[in-house]
Amino acid sequence: METSSLIKVTKTENSKINQVDFDNLVFGKTFTDHMFICDYKDGSWQTPEILPYQPLTLDPSAKVFHYGQAVFEGMKAYKDEQGKAWLFRPEENFERINKSSKRLNIPEFIKEYFLEGLNELLKLDSAWIKSGQDAGNALYIRPFVIATQAGVMASPSTEYKFIIICSPVQAYYTKDVKVKIADYYSRAANGGFGAAKAAGNYAGQFYPTKLVQEEGYDQVIWTDDTNHEHLEEAGTMNIFFRINDTLVTCPISERILDGITRKSVITMAEKLGITVEVRKVTVTELIEAANNGSLKESFGSGTAAVISPIGTIAHKDNVWTLTKPEDCYSAAIKKAILDVQYNVAEDTFGWRYEVK
Amino acid sequence: METSSLIKVTKTENSKINQVDFDNLVFGKTFTDHMFICDYKDGSWQTPEILPYQPLTLDPSAKVFHYGQAVFEGMKAYKDEQGKAWLFRPEENFERINKSSKRLNIPEFIKEYFLEGLNELLKLDSAWIKSGQDAGNALYIRPFVIATQAGVMASPSTEYKFIIICSPVQAYYTKDVKVKIADYYSRAANGGFGAAKAAGNYAGQFYPTKLVQEEGYDQVIWTDDTNHEHLEEAGTMNIFFRINDTLVTCPISERILDGITRKSVITMAEKLGITVEVRKVTVTELIEAANNGSLKESFGSGTAAVISPIGTIAHKDNVWTLTKPEDCYSAAIKKAILDVQYNVAEDTFGWRYEVK
Ligand SMILES: Cc1ncc(COP(=O)(O)O)c(C=O)c1O
Ligand SMILES: Cc1ncc(COP(=O)(O)O)c(C=O)c1O
Repeated sequence: METSSLIKVTKTENSKINQVDFDNLVFGKTFTDHMFICDYKDGSWQTPEILPYQPLTLDPSAKVFHYGQAVFEGMKAYKDEQGKAWLFRPEENFERINKSSKRLNIPEFIKEYFLEGLNELLKLDSAWIKSGQDAGNALYIRPFVIATQAGVMASPSTEYKFIIICSPVQAYYTKDVKVKIADYYSRAANGGFGAAKAAGNYAGQFYPTKLVQEEGYDQVIWTDDTNHEHLEEAGTMNIFFRINDTLVTCPISERILDGITRKSVITMAEKLGITVEVRKVTVTELIEAANNGSLKESFGSGTAAVISPIGTIAHKDNVWTLTKPEDCYSAAIKKAILDVQYNVAEDTFGWRYEVK
Repeated sequence: METSSLIKVTKTENSKINQVDFDNLVFGKTFTDHMFICDYKDGSWQTPEILPYQPLTLDPSAKVFHYGQAVFEGMKAYKDEQGKAWLFRPEENFERINKSSKRLNIPEFIKEYFLEGLNELLKLDSAWIKSGQDAGNALYIRPFVIATQAGVMASPSTEYKFIIICSPVQAYYTKDVKVKIADYYSRAANGGFGAAKAAGNYAGQFYPTKLVQEEGYDQVIWTDDTNHEHLEEAGTMNIFFRINDTLVTCPISERILDGITRKSVITMAEKLGITVEVRKVTVTELIEAANNGSLKESFGSGTAAVISPIGTIAHKDNVWTLTKPEDCYSAAIKKAILDVQYNVAEDTFGWRYEVK
């Protein structure tokens, strides 16, 4: 057992790393040797610990099972060819998980615990981060908070666990994505918690997503719940449309997750000389652009895949297929961001954060 | 160890019942000696078991923690003065949990397992059900389903646990409730899963509820998320208004939980000769009725409290206080329903279900 200044560290005695085939990973299935865990009780966060990856033991009445107080983050660590590990804008994830927590009445976490916890955990499990930009090798990092107080009364929990687990991954979508625009189901309400990365925002999407998958699509593009006229986001991605030579994405709102990749895409596109408009995009406008050929590209942005080109868009009975133009924006932006993430390009925006 | 036809039963060797002060119970804090548990894996529900009440051990990547696939029910068992235990409309709870499950892409449960599981569990823990209608003594029963598959990918779980735990309780609210009508935050989206008794519908209410509690209210009355003009329901209760001599409640919809107490109130009120209207109620109408004195009563309905009279209603800066009329509908309906639940009145509607 070692003790860092803030964090109590207990190392595993049996690394699982030799059992893992890093060339054939299923996204989110394999976990590293250690996890970070910090308990909230008696009104404050206790001493954080790094422990061997292990199951959680919770009372069956723990509030997370009944009232859904659970928020999470998704981030990645990348390894460069020199063997150094890097995080991408981790402070953004820290701020967002606290924003999510606030909306779900979960106590906010402590920045030093988060950043030092990540750093220590990644140092310990550094061998699990593989280099290889082309294969999309990375370590997917999942910080999350769950309500652990025992008791079936619908009120905020007095106890929580903040946990970080890590999973080695490769590129997420390998094919272009087929999406269908929602015209009945919705993801978020006005005045709801759609902007929070809360567990409760995901389960509700599975059934409508299954319905479109039965029609041959991969994901739903969510629209506003009032009249399904404004394009909002996909299940785990924000969305962009290239109309003629302008890249358009809708503004974030209390219904939409403020994606860190989305922000980075906007900044990077502008750096690459692409005109970006952040404004409402209606279904009517999109259909018109698809019909008259001015819709040149569309893609989703998110930590898992950086950018996922959209190859097919459907709305009710109409289907449009998009062919990538030669001066493909999505490919250029994706490469520019990946080059920063894997430390092969200059980090002009201060996005990289070295693990050391 | 015993084996019922369907369920494998393992009894506890150490009953906790003597440690419990049944006259000073905190709602939902104390649990009985046993629990029911049934696993779903390999595409089907496995042999259900009754076990000593015990913690759950789950991988930190279990989907319930990340994607919120979790639904539940709330029901009660009552003991009559002859020592017989009764459930109230349990098949309604069974149907509703399956409806909730379907919306969250959770496999539906098996009716015999549910009803026989309840029956065996309540027989085993029968001593925990105390008679006493005036004190509101009952056993609160919490069936719930959680997604247990390990893995951080946003897709439906392939493994679940269906669990039933039980908690001895007394009357829930002892005072009249003070409510404030929502004019910014919302509970559910059109096309969302507000009609499901899903964990994710509760966590989002805690923060807005805390805000009204800071102003001295107990609960929020939710309104539609489009323009906050239609009165929908409270956090864990459906709502009724008595306008002159008519009892009014809004229709259920995909945004509102189809409360079993609500249904029972409508039926019982009609039996008592009260005119009931199921129709939209607007905030404007309510304010008018409150101002001109035609709003005579208001109450919430739910399993926990049966009927909770509302004493104060606020909207923005306006506050109305309601004084119970002499021919109080809520008291009459509550008594009539409790009399059925505690087996002191005839069960004309076939609502009672004997545990035996
Ligand atoms: C609903 C939703 N929208 C968008 C995103 C993209 O956010 P980010 O770019 O921060 O990963 C995610 C998460 O990955 C998400 O879950
Ligand atoms: C949101 C909500 N509305 C209404 C109710 C009332 O439903 P029931 O009468 O079936 O208990 C409940 C549950 O108790 C609830 O959670």
